[in-house]
Amino acid sequence: MTASPRRTASANNIAAETLTVSQAGERQVLAEILARIPTGTPLLGPGDDAAIVAAPDGRFAVTVDTMIEGPDFRREWSTPRQLGSKAVTTNLSDIAAMGAAPTALVIALAVPRDMPVTWVTEFADGVAAQLLRLAPECGVVGGDLATAEHITISVTAFGDLQGRAPITRSGARAGDQVAVAGTLGLAAAGLHLLFGGVDDPLVATQLAPESPITAGVTAAVSGATAMMDLSDGLLLDGHRLAAASGVALDFSRELLHADIARLAERFGTELAERFVLGGGEDHSLLATFVADAELPPPFRRIGTVRSGCGIRVDGEPVDPMGWDPFVGVTA
Amino acid sequence: MTASPRRTASANNIAAETLTVSQAGERQVLAEILARIPTGTPLLGPGDDAAIVAAPDGRFAVTVDTMIEGPDFRREWSTPRQLGSKAVTTNLSDIAAMGAAPTALVIALAVPRDMPVTWVTEFADGVAAQLLRLAPECGVVGGDLATAEHITISVTAFGDLQGRAPITRSGARAGDQVAVAGTLGLAAAGLHLLFGGVDDPLVATQLAPESPITAGVTAAVSGATAMMDLSDGLLLDGHRLAAASGVALDFSRELLHADIARLAERFGTELAERFVLGGGEDHSLLATFVADAELPPPFRRIGTVRSGCGIRVDGEPVDPMGWDPFVGVTA
Repeated sequence: MTASPRRTASANNIAAETLTVSQAGERQVLAEILARIPTGTPLLGPGDDAAIVAAPDGRFAVTVDTMIEGPDFRREWSTPRQLGSKAVTTNLSDIAAMGAAPTALVIALAVPRDMPVTWVTEFADGVAAQLLRLAPECGVVGGDLATAEHITISVTAFGDLQGRAPITRSGARAGDQVAVAGTLGLAAAGLHLLFGGVDDPLVATQLAPESPITAGVTAAVSGATAMMDLSDGLLLDGHRLAAASGVALDFSRELLHADIARLAERFGTELAERFVLGGGEDHSLLATFVADAELPPPFRRIGTVRSGCGIRVDGEPVDPMGWDPFVGVTA
Repeated sequence: MTASPRRTASANNIAAETLTVSQAGERQVLAEILARIPTGTPLLGPGDDAAIVAAPDGRFAVTVDTMIEGPDFRREWSTPRQLGSKAVTTNLSDIAAMGAAPTALVIALAVPRDMPVTWVTEFADGVAAQLLRLAPECGVVGGDLATAEHITISVTAFGDLQGRAPITRSGARAGDQVAVAGTLGLAAAGLHLLFGGVDDPLVATQLAPESPITAGVTAAVSGATAMMDLSDGLLLDGHRLAAASGVALDFSRELLHADIARLAERFGTELAERFVLGGGEDHSLLATFVADAELPPPFRRIGTVRSGCGIRVDGEPVDPMGWDPFVGVTA
């Protein structure tokens, strides 16, 4: 290759923090990413037309989720590290919700041409750190780099069922216990504070949520009858699980007391209850277990499966609430 | 649920061709897509937190590719049907290039809120038609719908190696034949015409390329030593294969005569040669086979693997050319 402007720019030692992805070029940006992100142990890793991943029991679980600057996040609110972390969490959470152990990810990332390379490397650091925390055996086996006016992050995640049947949304039966692993309402409370311009640790829960990933396999091994990831809130996601199973879910305020009380101190009972029942993005796991099952930690009981349909709170039917990306909040 | 504006709009029978995705809502748009796109025969299809796909030999091939309005396509040039077709082709081509048979796709699609639902359904029709043409056993097992200012299409594709080793880029050895399956330069010629505002069948080759998907498995079964998808052109992709294998690829103008002559009639020899050697997006398959192998159709010989490094044409070293998404054309 002959000298090109980017090579000259690179040779002139543009300060690392101001070097843009278009100045660095795809190859250098990719090298920076690959130096940071664990690839796990695929049979064939990044660098060819496709990666080859092991599927020990002859099946694999797959899910995809996209985060787009504007509708899903704002650059002035989320650090690149938080976005890398969140991209991992939201996808692994869907894998965990099937009762599968995460095995691999592929990431399609598009950023504006004038984005500093350091933004991309910090995003990669966020991916790497969260993978290490939530699923140290899971690596990034491939990806795609592109340019776009708005940051676009599309992650596809894979999981291994380890010989078990997947835990779907449709197995809940009347009489089962309704249980949850993880927090309820904290991400919604964080979003509320974020919109209000308040700097608070809860905001970080919104921007880089945690998810009890290993609880997915725990639930499956312990005989969960149905399970799903709570991305759109207890009422709306619970409604989906109830519909898929042909049952009603009856949540108990008493069993949810600790969740509501924790937020009520600060936000009042009405708002706290709205966060806990209606708030999304905690990425906790909602699962059902037969009536006499001993719930495996970290699952805790929050209600009961009833015959019928829809969602109830203390036996009273309620309207599900949630977020439709095309129409905004529906009620 | 109580009545919401979208339900009212829907009830008032907005003409189908003007109904936007935000008026219809995610659920209806998704239903329209699912009614059109084949899901194949996954162990668990769309509708849960994750899909479950069979991986009969305990492994799966995976690749991801994103197309973004602006850098990758323009709405005034590509019909939604062409975009759906191209999204399928470019990804299946990467699976084929490993010697794998395509098994499944997941698609993350983001469109502006004011996009007509008919755009999305025509995109789905394009996906469905191309799947039927190229890989009738492959289905769409999952996806993600979102809104974005610019259309964003991210496809992750899966393949089954059927018990064989993957055909990587690194297996070419000096003395091997260099072969190609599919067209060379037609997509680049189409792009040239498109930029010139010429309406011509070649433009469709650019906007909705074909790829000899089944030739991937054919090559693997016939003992191909290396293989890759030609997305960035013969020289640049050939350079990558040469580098991965630690050899040189020597293309023959005589063996490429028919490809060049076909385009030279119309564009002159110089431009024709540039299209054939440097033009990307044909999504043909470049493969190497041992010297005495009988090439399986549709592969045809275009050169020879030499010891050394880099790319040669008739024995003369040449600079690879191609497209770097972050810096534009490099030379």
